Amino acid sequence: MSGNTFGHLFAVTNFGESHGPAIGCVIDGCPPGMALSEADIQPDLDRRRPGTSRHVTQRQEADQVEILSGVYEGRTTGTPICLLIRNTDQRSKDYGDIAQTFRPGHADYAYLHKYGLRDPRGGGRSSARLTAPMVAAGAVAKKWLAQKFGTRFRGCMQQIGEVEIPFEGWDHVPRNPFFAPVADVSALESYMDALRKAGDSCGARLRVSATGMPLGLGEPLFDKLDADIAWALMGINAVKGVEIGAGFASVVQRGSTHGDSLTPQGFRTNNAGGVLGGISTGQDLEVSIAIKPTSSIISPRETINLQGEAAEIVTKGRHDPCVGIRATPIAEAMLALVVMDHALRHRAQNGDVAPPMQPIQASFL
Amino acid sequence: MSGNTFGHLFAVTNFGESHGPAIGCVIDGCPPGMALSEADIQPDLDRRRPGTSRHVTQRQEADQVEILSGVYEGRTTGTPICLLIRNTDQRSKDYGDIAQTFRPGHADYAYLHKYGLRDPRGGGRSSARLTAPMVAAGAVAKKWLAQKFGTRFRGCMQQIGEVEIPFEGWDHVPRNPFFAPVADVSALESYMDALRKAGDSCGARLRVSATGMPLGLGEPLFDKLDADIAWALMGINAVKGVEIGAGFASVVQRGSTHGDSLTPQGFRTNNAGGVLGGISTGQDLEVSIAIKPTSSIISPRETINLQGEAAEIVTKGRHDPCVGIRATPIAEAMLALVVMDHALRHRAQNGDVAPPMQPIQASFL
Amino acid sequence: MSGNTFGHLFAVTNFGESHGPAIGCVIDGCPPGMALSEADIQPDLDRRRPGTSRHVTQRQEADQVEILSGVYEGRTTGTPICLLIRNTDQRSKDYGDIAQTFRPGHADYAYLHKYGLRDPRGGGRSSARLTAPMVAAGAVAKKWLAQKFGTRFRGCMQQIGEVEIPFEGWDHVPRNPFFAPVADVSALESYMDALRKAGDSCGARLRVSATGMPLGLGEPLFDKLDADIAWALMGINAVKGVEIGAGFASVVQRGSTHGDSLTPQGFRTNNAGGVLGGISTGQDLEVSIAIKPTSSIISPRETINLQGEAAEIVTKGRHDPCVGIRATPIAEAMLALVVMDHALRHRAQNGDVAPPMQPIQASFL
Amino acid sequence: MSGNTFGHLFAVTNFGESHGPAIGCVIDGCPPGMALSEADIQPDLDRRRPGTSRHVTQRQEADQVEILSGVYEGRTTGTPICLLIRNTDQRSKDYGDIAQTFRPGHADYAYLHKYGLRDPRGGGRSSARLTAPMVAAGAVAKKWLAQKFGTRFRGCMQQIGEVEIPFEGWDHVPRNPFFAPVADVSALESYMDALRKAGDSCGARLRVSATGMPLGLGEPLFDKLDADIAWALMGINAVKGVEIGAGFASVVQRGSTHGDSLTPQGFRTNNAGGVLGGISTGQDLEVSIAIKPTSSIISPRETINLQGEAAEIVTKGRHDPCVGIRATPIAEAMLALVVMDHALRHRAQNGDVAPPMQPIQASFL
Repeated sequence: MSGNTFGHLFAVTNFGESHGPAIGCVIDGCPPGMALSEADIQPDLDRRRPGTSRHVTQRQEADQVEILSGVYEGRTTGTPICLLIRNTDQRSKDYGDIAQTFRPGHADYAYLHKYGLRDPRGGGRSSARLTAPMVAAGAVAKKWLAQKFGTRFRGCMQQIGEVEIPFEGWDHVPRNPFFAPVADVSALESYMDALRKAGDSCGARLRVSATGMPLGLGEPLFDKLDADIAWALMGINAVKGVEIGAGFASVVQRGSTHGDSLTPQGFRTNNAGGVLGGISTGQDLEVSIAIKPTSSIISPRETINLQGEAAEIVTKGRHDPCVGIRATPIAEAMLALVVMDHALRHRAQNGDVAPPMQPIQASFL
Repeated sequence: MSGNTFGHLFAVTNFGESHGPAIGCVIDGCPPGMALSEADIQPDLDRRRPGTSRHVTQRQEADQVEILSGVYEGRTTGTPICLLIRNTDQRSKDYGDIAQTFRPGHADYAYLHKYGLRDPRGGGRSSARLTAPMVAAGAVAKKWLAQKFGTRFRGCMQQIGEVEIPFEGWDHVPRNPFFAPVADVSALESYMDALRKAGDSCGARLRVSATGMPLGLGEPLFDKLDADIAWALMGINAVKGVEIGAGFASVVQRGSTHGDSLTPQGFRTNNAGGVLGGISTGQDLEVSIAIKPTSSIISPRETINLQGEAAEIVTKGRHDPCVGIRATPIAEAMLALVVMDHALRHRAQNGDVAPPMQPIQASFL
Repeated sequence: MSGNTFGHLFAVTNFGESHGPAIGCVIDGCPPGMALSEADIQPDLDRRRPGTSRHVTQRQEADQVEILSGVYEGRTTGTPICLLIRNTDQRSKDYGDIAQTFRPGHADYAYLHKYGLRDPRGGGRSSARLTAPMVAAGAVAKKWLAQKFGTRFRGCMQQIGEVEIPFEGWDHVPRNPFFAPVADVSALESYMDALRKAGDSCGARLRVSATGMPLGLGEPLFDKLDADIAWALMGINAVKGVEIGAGFASVVQRGSTHGDSLTPQGFRTNNAGGVLGGISTGQDLEVSIAIKPTSSIISPRETINLQGEAAEIVTKGRHDPCVGIRATPIAEAMLALVVMDHALRHRAQNGDVAPPMQPIQASFL
Repeated sequence: MSGNTFGHLFAVTNFGESHGPAIGCVIDGCPPGMALSEADIQPDLDRRRPGTSRHVTQRQEADQVEILSGVYEGRTTGTPICLLIRNTDQRSKDYGDIAQTFRPGHADYAYLHKYGLRDPRGGGRSSARLTAPMVAAGAVAKKWLAQKFGTRFRGCMQQIGEVEIPFEGWDHVPRNPFFAPVADVSALESYMDALRKAGDSCGARLRVSATGMPLGLGEPLFDKLDADIAWALMGINAVKGVEIGAGFASVVQRGSTHGDSLTPQGFRTNNAGGVLGGISTGQDLEVSIAIKPTSSIISPRETINLQGEAAEIVTKGRHDPCVGIRATPIAEAMLALVVMDHALRHRAQNGDVAPPMQPIQASFL
């Protein structure tokens, strides 16, 4: 109820602060009998890890995950899986002065008023570092969904600041530090270098999708699959907008074109983004999110101090000039966690889940 | 868990189908002692009601609400409030043929595969008619929040199809059938008349906001206020995108401009849309949503039947050519329900909620 | 969260007051496709109904249930099932004077202090009348469990006041107004007649059990099957104690006798009451509950009024001299609802549920 | 949903196995601003700790708790508190043979059938060792309740096997290894020595109570305070029965004596055990529980193996001959956790909680 548990049947409870001894999560509800070890989880953590290129924060964190419970002789037991990640590279002195002043665009002000006190070290609980345990939990969900349905999750960058990135192919994504689906990222490199030199930050737009989706996931009326996706992705630090399928472009569409025609061979288009009436149709899930520019920048900003007096603030520390860059594996993980929870919810009420739609007819019973 | 309850502490359980005997909801968690009667609820229902202009569906429903429980001698008792709305104008014969065919863009296909059967009359459970009980519940939430904090909710149309609507003032909104914040709606009337004549439908873009917001509402990490708003609004029928504050425009902003500066007199801007780190800052909540064109149109569409064979469908019945028009009071209600739930959640953990920010300083303790 | 929803995946939200216009419930999560009509529900309501013998309250309520939603062409659709029961025989004037005085043993005092106001008519929300919708919901659960697993629920009276009732056979239970498993109930009739003449009330002890239980239901660590049973049954009005299997008798047992031996033909005994480690073993569930004497009696009692001054109270109105008598169908329904919820929870995590244990070996995979 | 989270607003998620690397819990919802350190928690853990007398298991566990998150500069921040306890004295080889055979009265059989596999080392997840994190979480709840309301929790032994223990005074409880409220425990020592020599185990009966209770806690209809207490205590390993107030003794009471009279000076008696209509009255909570004899005994038992064949089992390892002895601090913690959760639930709906009843009149508003 205090907002630190994600999901209902595959429930992930997150704990920790950016500069405390450790961060982690407890997964409750993982089906028993699945082979699981740290090796299944570490690759996704490594994709999100800081310090891997000059375009992201230089904080060095190994982000080594340790499974503390819920696995016996290499298999999940159906009991809670505790995943622990020790913090190793805290430089809390960087944050000494911000304890007295509010950073514009940051959670400082809201946290202090909500709780009456806050942990200012590295943003404390509001740090994007807390997405690491979700990436770890997402890896567990991804594995189960891949084995059960063949569902796969992937994401890529669509735009960094003003630079729109055309989609050339998924294969390019892991080959550059921007998760960009293009062969040549020199324009992005120049853009980011200039931005870093200017001491500023920029926003980004990401795409995340799922293939091999089982039909019938999502609960009407409120826990619609698309509603839960919006909740999960809007909940990622710095996200300010979420679209499903055609999204905001559907405003200027006509009903005669927006509605995806059905044919014996499948849907003709995917304006729906894989969801109709809140329920998955077996088409690919297609989601797009907007990420605001990093609030922590070294340019001086106008603000107030704890006494409400005018003040100026310069945020030192090591920050991502574009938080959107490392958000791709996070968005994938959140999408996977939503689908996982709905897969379990579906079979609670409806029994074992239908297979992914091959031809449409195959699903009729 | 099956998706028919909205909220945790102000929990609204919705029931009914478009063409069943009745629709309604049960509100559990309303604070005791508040004066409440049907007269507090009916005005918002009347704003959402069908049949009020030639630009919306011609189905005639009085949408008279009856309070069945939870109120004694005109005051809420703290026990469940059941609100019942009888259906009166069902013409189910309109739906006879769609039982054998799937309507593109509609929930038919997904429902049938999820549940193995469905109620085809008027969309059954997937009908936008089910938003009526939410508007009723939202009116209860609005009243409590207005009395407690002075919070007010309002919405208006920003765009219908290609027609962008400039913001001239809130006063215009109740004076035209489009919830448009402009004095002259003749362009909208012509546009809608042409659309109806063409047998087609269009999308829309709405703005919904809250003023007089208490500081400190919203739960990190997951049940962020903005995440829950995204969930609630994406859950409204036909919504395909949600933005908070600057939304997708923040992609091309710099950190030096996006982050709202604080001054002793308040924030300078509201790119955040009233939420930082998932917690309300006391600024106005600002949300924008994209609504897809109505799926039920009378133009013939390509589809398949229950046997998976190619078919053609023409959707008769009485439908809104732009479902976005009647969505304004719905979006207000959903926003109010999210804020209400978080107000109660906040005081569970933190005791009685802080007053709305007057000058910033006033909130410091 | 405000305590009016029972269950998680088969979630029953209860509403109404003893003397309001109606009582009822909304069932969310019922699996789709099950044949269901009022005729499946009414028989259990009739077993609980008041006014059926001189040994229970003389209030006349038909307790006719109406299905408002969730059923289409005689089958459940997987959407919320609203069950409505109109109140027809309220005599609220009976309760005029108790609005100023607290009845010993009754919820008046606690309700007023919790909520600051209360509905005094017939106990308002604290009335045992609110168990009727649970009996109705329980009938739906019973039907599904019977079809799926062959599970059956039944209860009987073990003791009324000082009169212990030997177990002669289940066949006797429906043949007398006491739900007593004996052929001759003349001793009970005399006892109850004398009690009524004395203007007093007495307690009771009931047994409720389930046969044909599927193996593996119940969640460790907290939502153990026996813990949830204790919660459900202690939550019935007037219940003061709950035992599973050997219950309090296990205090004086030795480990060498209490632990039920396993043999190739099955368990030798059932001290466990069908649950080990919080999980069902396939043995019969065996539960016993203690019900306190009715608090509403016509003998004068010492109390205080709203001003805290000494006062005397005589409770008029029409009350059961032993509320335990009508509690048998209620206890069955509550047990069925617990098992139903756990059956759905089980298959969420573990896939389709194992069949009931025939010989033990049959369950091994 | 998988049963490893206790509570809703003060939610404790438990993880770990008896012989894994660590056990622990995450507390979500603790109010911010409370001074908290390991020193607040360790004393209760030490009271529950094994190996402290010859009458309990000889396993040596320091049960040192470490706070991993949620506390900054000695105060709770309102964010999740992770408590970690490392396992140090596992002797898993003791459990080698039980992997092939089911122990009567133990969870082995049910776990294997539920999950298809299990961790046999020390009972794995079903071990009473998992109550340690609850004792730790309970210590946090106790501290907050003591500061806020002056509420105190305490428990004592009422009976061990056939030996009934008269109540001489609370002062005796911490002075003997049995939590017995008597000066002379020589009879208990002899009884336990004989039992241990016989290689057998026995049951126990405990009392647990709370003083300084705030009025108005508990939610009708289902999450009644007494129902939630029954759930929490029945959920402790080996508990088979729960009573509130007069409990099973109320079966033979009359309404004229059971109902506690109110006077201007307070209630005359406490048959209710502090709860009426599911809501606390401000009287002391009084609860009694029955604990079955330990299932792990060294006497040989009849059982079956994984193949369903007849077998004999002798449970080696280090076990408590009467698990009831160490259950006293566990029962206190569970009661405190229930009250804590309801305190937060109450103020969500009703605003800040009323003070404990001093004279009855003081509570009227």
